[in-house]
Amino acid sequence: MSTKAAPQRETAETLAKKQKQISISEFFAKNRHLLGFDNPRKALLTAIKEMVDNSLDACEDMGMPPDIFVGIDPGERENRFRITVRDNGPGILKKQVPSVFGKLLYGSKFHGYRQQRGQQGIGVSAAGLYAMLTTGKPVEVITKTGPRKKAYRCELRIDTQHNRPDTLGEKELDWDEVRHGTEVVMELEGTYQRGRHSVDSYLEQTAITNPHAQITYRTPDGEERVFERATTEMPRPTHAIKPHPYGVELGVLMRMIKETSSKHLGEFFQNEFSRVGAKVAAEICETAKADPKSNPHRLGRASIDELYHAIQKVKISAPPTDCISPIGEELLLKSLQKEVEADFYHTVTRSPAVYRGMPFCIEAGLAYGGNIPGDDPARLLRFANRVPLLYQQSGCAITKATIETSWRNYNLQQSRGALPVGPLIIVVHMASVWVPFTSESKEAVASYPEIMKEIKLALQDCGRKLGTFIRKRRREADEEKKRSYIQKYIPQIGIALQDILGLNDKNRDDTCENLKTVLERSRKM
Amino acid sequence: MSTKAAPQRETAETLAKKQKQISISEFFAKNRHLLGFDNPRKALLTAIKEMVDNSLDACEDMGMPPDIFVGIDPGERENRFRITVRDNGPGILKKQVPSVFGKLLYGSKFHGYRQQRGQQGIGVSAAGLYAMLTTGKPVEVITKTGPRKKAYRCELRIDTQHNRPDTLGEKELDWDEVRHGTEVVMELEGTYQRGRHSVDSYLEQTAITNPHAQITYRTPDGEERVFERATTEMPRPTHAIKPHPYGVELGVLMRMIKETSSKHLGEFFQNEFSRVGAKVAAEICETAKADPKSNPHRLGRASIDELYHAIQKVKISAPPTDCISPIGEELLLKSLQKEVEADFYHTVTRSPAVYRGMPFCIEAGLAYGGNIPGDDPARLLRFANRVPLLYQQSGCAITKATIETSWRNYNLQQSRGALPVGPLIIVVHMASVWVPFTSESKEAVASYPEIMKEIKLALQDCGRKLGTFIRKRRREADEEKKRSYIQKYIPQIGIALQDILGLNDKNRDDTCENLKTVLERSRKM
Repeated sequence: MSTKAAPQRETAETLAKKQKQISISEFFAKNRHLLGFDNPRKALLTAIKEMVDNSLDACEDMGMPPDIFVGIDPGERENRFRITVRDNGPGILKKQVPSVFGKLLYGSKFHGYRQQRGQQGIGVSAAGLYAMLTTGKPVEVITKTGPRKKAYRCELRIDTQHNRPDTLGEKELDWDEVRHGTEVVMELEGTYQRGRHSVDSYLEQTAITNPHAQITYRTPDGEERVFERATTEMPRPTHAIKPHPYGVELGVLMRMIKETSSKHLGEFFQNEFSRVGAKVAAEICETAKADPKSNPHRLGRASIDELYHAIQKVKISAPPTDCISPIGEELLLKSLQKEVEADFYHTVTRSPAVYRGMPFCIEAGLAYGGNIPGDDPARLLRFANRVPLLYQQSGCAITKATIETSWRNYNLQQSRGALPVGPLIIVVHMASVWVPFTSESKEAVASYPEIMKEIKLALQDCGRKLGTFIRKRRREADEEKKRSYIQKYIPQIGIALQDILGLNDKNRDDTCENLKTVLERSRKM
Repeated sequence: MSTKAAPQRETAETLAKKQKQISISEFFAKNRHLLGFDNPRKALLTAIKEMVDNSLDACEDMGMPPDIFVGIDPGERENRFRITVRDNGPGILKKQVPSVFGKLLYGSKFHGYRQQRGQQGIGVSAAGLYAMLTTGKPVEVITKTGPRKKAYRCELRIDTQHNRPDTLGEKELDWDEVRHGTEVVMELEGTYQRGRHSVDSYLEQTAITNPHAQITYRTPDGEERVFERATTEMPRPTHAIKPHPYGVELGVLMRMIKETSSKHLGEFFQNEFSRVGAKVAAEICETAKADPKSNPHRLGRASIDELYHAIQKVKISAPPTDCISPIGEELLLKSLQKEVEADFYHTVTRSPAVYRGMPFCIEAGLAYGGNIPGDDPARLLRFANRVPLLYQQSGCAITKATIETSWRNYNLQQSRGALPVGPLIIVVHMASVWVPFTSESKEAVASYPEIMKEIKLALQDCGRKLGTFIRKRRREADEEKKRSYIQKYIPQIGIALQDILGLNDKNRDDTCENLKTVLERSRKM
């Protein structure tokens, strides 16, 4: 056994010496499963997902139909892969490159209220962090901001102890084959497999919700697949919105009041929130017994608390919805038809709704029959801001709402607490300025009641159409059966009648024709 | 509709202006469900849990049997509560107070490898952040580091934008009723309810795994409950250990080599890792074709990669286990008996095992029969480093391992994929220098195969004992039934014999006695 001295009894002094700051990079390096890097297979997917999501966001920001290349090449050892993602986005300014790729919690998306794929400022740097942890190799970035500009290239390491990028081998160079855009390369430990949770499956699903994107994909075997764009029409560009009063917590309100440049309280409400005009601002102040002309910086905690409670009592219209850009029924239908062979398709885009002051919009689609296997539970494809969600299915609001929908009403089998069974693919897309994910790895949507309700309504709408289709198809099948009886037995009856009545062949055939017409007519009534 | 101008098309320049750093406090304020503050009921529990965990750690660090007070008082408005947690720990130095309670990712526990309740440096500051967000009120701290010292009191706000504490109203004062210790008070939005996921239930369970702690609890109704300590014996003090080579990733190894003060590579391995002596260090170097005398700072990535792979090939003993302090079979049994009324108890402490280079130890206990309801699924109590886990049961390795154990072998009913049914309470405790939680809210253990295996072995051990008990009890019940038949029918047989053979009453009674003895003897054979 150990012969060490007994551990020291701690005092306030000895404990104080051990206290120190923990960098966010160290934290996530030790807890990398929180970011989706739990195992090599998932790690490969997560890294590519974060890189592609960033590329798509960048192209859309620029109003450029995305043209993305994704390549996976074998790395220097077994179980290592070198992944490359290249886009035709606006490129990144030289001085921003290190922070964008080499610092966790850095980005342009966290503070705005606008629909984007990224929202945390963690994803792509986390992928780089994982790459460095598992292969020790830096992330390589090359970027070009315009046709007449030089490209900038560098290698980046994350200094985890300080959550700070170290830049190596910087240079400017020509990059003639590219007008503008960014290419990121990293080598990491991973496992490449096909199937449901694979890179292939992620890209297939990305093609469904991003019909305006063209994606070229090279597998580790050198095989090349192209996901062609289904439209050149770009998604509607989105406005960033100000926060809605109903979604702001007391602590945040206090900070906003402290930091505002507005001179008067009434003005503050009108300037800093969406959907607050002079009338609503006055009403909030009146309810809280506060003077709209008072200086907001002079307000104490108790007065702000009153204002906070007044906000909840005043009727304020729902937030504007031009911050959201759904795919649209027509395009979603087109994409589904392109990717899935089925007999029936239906898609629905709901009007926007609101949770915790955040606008969101649910879209749903069904594909039924055709090539889809019929004896298994339906396949559920979940999307948030056009990004496929491949893990944590059971913890996701989309799954829960789908299970809680009564699919028996629509002529499908369903056991309690399970997905319906049949040749069915269900697609659900949530678009929002802020998707409430259940973890940093952004794999499942949290079950806010308003979100659950909207998903169910969208599915019910699709379900009713599917129910009608299935009913009609069953009726047609019945009819087809009857028709085949008629076709089969009438000639026999003809022969029998010929025998009994002594008809000639022509009479017999005419009688058969007559019989057929009469029966067909009666069948249709 | 909106008459705003179309959103700006972004360029690299306009995007660069929006890029900025996100503070960890802002991040978690927006994502507070990640920390366990999703709803008011859970928020109240989570805040108290973080405060009590810190207090217990502090007392144990000092070698002091914990004496903790927990009070919940109604707050200034409905749905607000003022919570107080006071301990008799070593206190905190004045200059450390602001960072300990007002800064996320700050603490003494993250960098060490030692069993403690806290490990992230987030918990108690996150509770304060939530309190501030929902009531705008600062956290109040009073602390005293020794009997002849003045106490220090202050109020703290977290500046979320900079993850930095703001200190208000500091003062020194006498705090005579306390020799040393810390009291923290915060007011937050919450809901108080009893039942499974309540503060009450958390404290009851804490008493089971912390038999050395005395906890006094005052509910919002003013009712006072005392959880008496079951022992004055303190848990074995734990040593901090160095990392084990098997648990170190390539990126971490590179950083360790860069930062080491060792002059020679061989020395580096011996100094910085546990279980590496001269022989193992030489073997690692030889396998990697590296010179043990070489200067570690001169090594390039490729050479370190070779060393990393060499480590995996060399046989190295498991890490030392004096960094872990299990509760122990005897104390766990005593606690269970104190808290639960049952007919059967059994507890097991397994020998330590290792996952990803981290030592851990699994303990399990069963209580069966008595007052426990018999027709429901067994109640599963999960613990990690003596802390009860109340949420995310289905996502936890402990639950999965319990479900995958074949309880039918031990004479219990069990449906596929479910907990066994019967009057049964199952307790599982994982003690480790680093518990791999599935989220920052520390509610469930990640399913590492080594951990799952150990849990199953511990449960099987308890299960076999329970199976024997249930079998024996059934046999006894059968015997009891037989005995009651004998008791019931022998007098009747006596009367019949008296009739038939014409016995007198004495003869009849003697015959009955004889019959009884013979039958009893045959029953026992």
